[in-house]
Amino acid sequence: MKIVMAHGSGGNATRELIRNLFQKYLSNAYLDKMEDSASLPKSEFSLALTTDTFVVTPLEFPGGDIGKLAVCGTVNDLWMVGAEPQYLTAGFILEEGLDLELLERIVKSLSLAAQEAGIYIVAGDTKVVQGNGGMYINTTGLGFKKFQQLTDGQTVQKNDAIIVSGNLGDHHACIMSQRMEIKNSIQSDCANLGPAVRALLEQGIRVRIMRDITRGGLGTVLNEIAEAKQVTMEIEEESIPVHSEVQSFCDILGLDPLYMANEGKFMCIVAKEDEEKALEILKNTKLGANARIIGHIIDTGRYLVTLKTRLGGRRIIDVLYSEGLPRIC
Amino acid sequence: MKIVMAHGSGGNATRELIRNLFQKYLSNAYLDKMEDSASLPKSEFSLALTTDTFVVTPLEFPGGDIGKLAVCGTVNDLWMVGAEPQYLTAGFILEEGLDLELLERIVKSLSLAAQEAGIYIVAGDTKVVQGNGGMYINTTGLGFKKFQQLTDGQTVQKNDAIIVSGNLGDHHACIMSQRMEIKNSIQSDCANLGPAVRALLEQGIRVRIMRDITRGGLGTVLNEIAEAKQVTMEIEEESIPVHSEVQSFCDILGLDPLYMANEGKFMCIVAKEDEEKALEILKNTKLGANARIIGHIIDTGRYLVTLKTRLGGRRIIDVLYSEGLPRIC
Repeated sequence: MKIVMAHGSGGNATRELIRNLFQKYLSNAYLDKMEDSASLPKSEFSLALTTDTFVVTPLEFPGGDIGKLAVCGTVNDLWMVGAEPQYLTAGFILEEGLDLELLERIVKSLSLAAQEAGIYIVAGDTKVVQGNGGMYINTTGLGFKKFQQLTDGQTVQKNDAIIVSGNLGDHHACIMSQRMEIKNSIQSDCANLGPAVRALLEQGIRVRIMRDITRGGLGTVLNEIAEAKQVTMEIEEESIPVHSEVQSFCDILGLDPLYMANEGKFMCIVAKEDEEKALEILKNTKLGANARIIGHIIDTGRYLVTLKTRLGGRRIIDVLYSEGLPRIC
Repeated sequence: MKIVMAHGSGGNATRELIRNLFQKYLSNAYLDKMEDSASLPKSEFSLALTTDTFVVTPLEFPGGDIGKLAVCGTVNDLWMVGAEPQYLTAGFILEEGLDLELLERIVKSLSLAAQEAGIYIVAGDTKVVQGNGGMYINTTGLGFKKFQQLTDGQTVQKNDAIIVSGNLGDHHACIMSQRMEIKNSIQSDCANLGPAVRALLEQGIRVRIMRDITRGGLGTVLNEIAEAKQVTMEIEEESIPVHSEVQSFCDILGLDPLYMANEGKFMCIVAKEDEEKALEILKNTKLGANARIIGHIIDTGRYLVTLKTRLGGRRIIDVLYSEGLPRIC
């Protein structure tokens, strides 16, 4: 069975698709009311709101699929501002010809990822467009800012440590391998960063800022922060964690892990005094075994990101300049 | 200038597009922080959350464009549950080849519609995919439920009146005319329903339920409510407001306004005692000149929607059965 234009009509075919597939996996007390908007209780916390659209191809890949990615990506954006994810909306654009069994696997995966992240899917929408059997998913997440560290005006200070939560480049190398039909065992790192972030915040680490390292890679993220905060960062090439198989993949293709996308990694800047404790906390989480302190804030008042190379030289790290990899998330 | 894949890379081209186009029109204190998630103050009201993806073609049409539609559609869904729109997210999927001037007009229109609706755009996302120069927009809206009528367990009762806020079928007939290149003066009714809904609620009308009449048309909306509430509705054909030019268009093409999509019309069920006052209030709003009482709840405990025809006969109104018009919203 395939998706046809009638599935987007708003009539009987749409109702059947929603009842037989979306409700089957996504049903909960909020969503089942099928109102124009979901009605949610008052919050005693301030709010965080974020949106992301996912257009990755292929739709399924080692380590994940567009459904899992659509939940993890948005949930992670909430955690990055110290907000606990509460409610999620999901907007599906289905291309005519999309295989219904594939769609079912993706919706099931999305549902499972939402359960694991502790977020309710409270509103949804489905549209059908002409195309070649692909699909896009927008998710928008609403979170409650239960952790005050990131809202109490923490400023980035000299000597603060820059920490990365694990190996870089996995998602990028995985998607690229799939497109190029290269056989290897590289898996996407697509994951919910919640447990790691919660551990840091609950144990009182003075986190100045956190960012998940997605499109544009670590190089771009560091530059964006350095520019916004007007600080000078120095990172050490030999401290940057990269899995050996991903490093080989990069060496062959001339890729730089600093500019490769991840979907289950974040960087954070923490107070110098907390750096060892923060690293230990991260290493004790499921996804943090390869966490590393990769550098420090060496000056304030001036925007610059430099890399100390393995050979002892220094080079300036700029934002991603060239195209990266299209449709990676 | 056209959109190219590099605009979706996450690197410099993406940053330039965001700075030179999106920020130019959408800038506000929330969005300008450019964090992973927007941080919003605590709300003293309960919340409403809704999402909608817009895939309409053509992107611009008489009476509106996909940008205006993307704001009005989501804002209206919030109003339908008695929530005042507060915050909006916008996720753009741009197809390679999209004309940058067209994109700029659309973003400008979206910005204007958001200002008029009193909603802040607090988070955004841009992706680029292969294609033919089209675009899709997802908007997700967060509202505060300031009006209690719709949350205090109002039940649909016998003799309640069914009111429609204006002429049916305009958006559908407009989009269809554009696609068929038929010359006429039919305009889309794409509009923010806020002022009309606010007037009803602030003046204390006992509104049982409201629904905007989009995909699937009035026939589908009435059936969904009648089924959910297990009531029998009878509506009168001669009471259903349709603009004469739209009616002629329908007569020629064999269309039924009952199943045609609108983007600036809603129906509400109000207490019998309030029906005349509600109608008067609506008629005094900008968009309500053609509001009509189109029928009543004639029984409870049984799900049925019947139409009393101009000739005095009765027929059963079912949900939209056939395809409708693809990509109408």
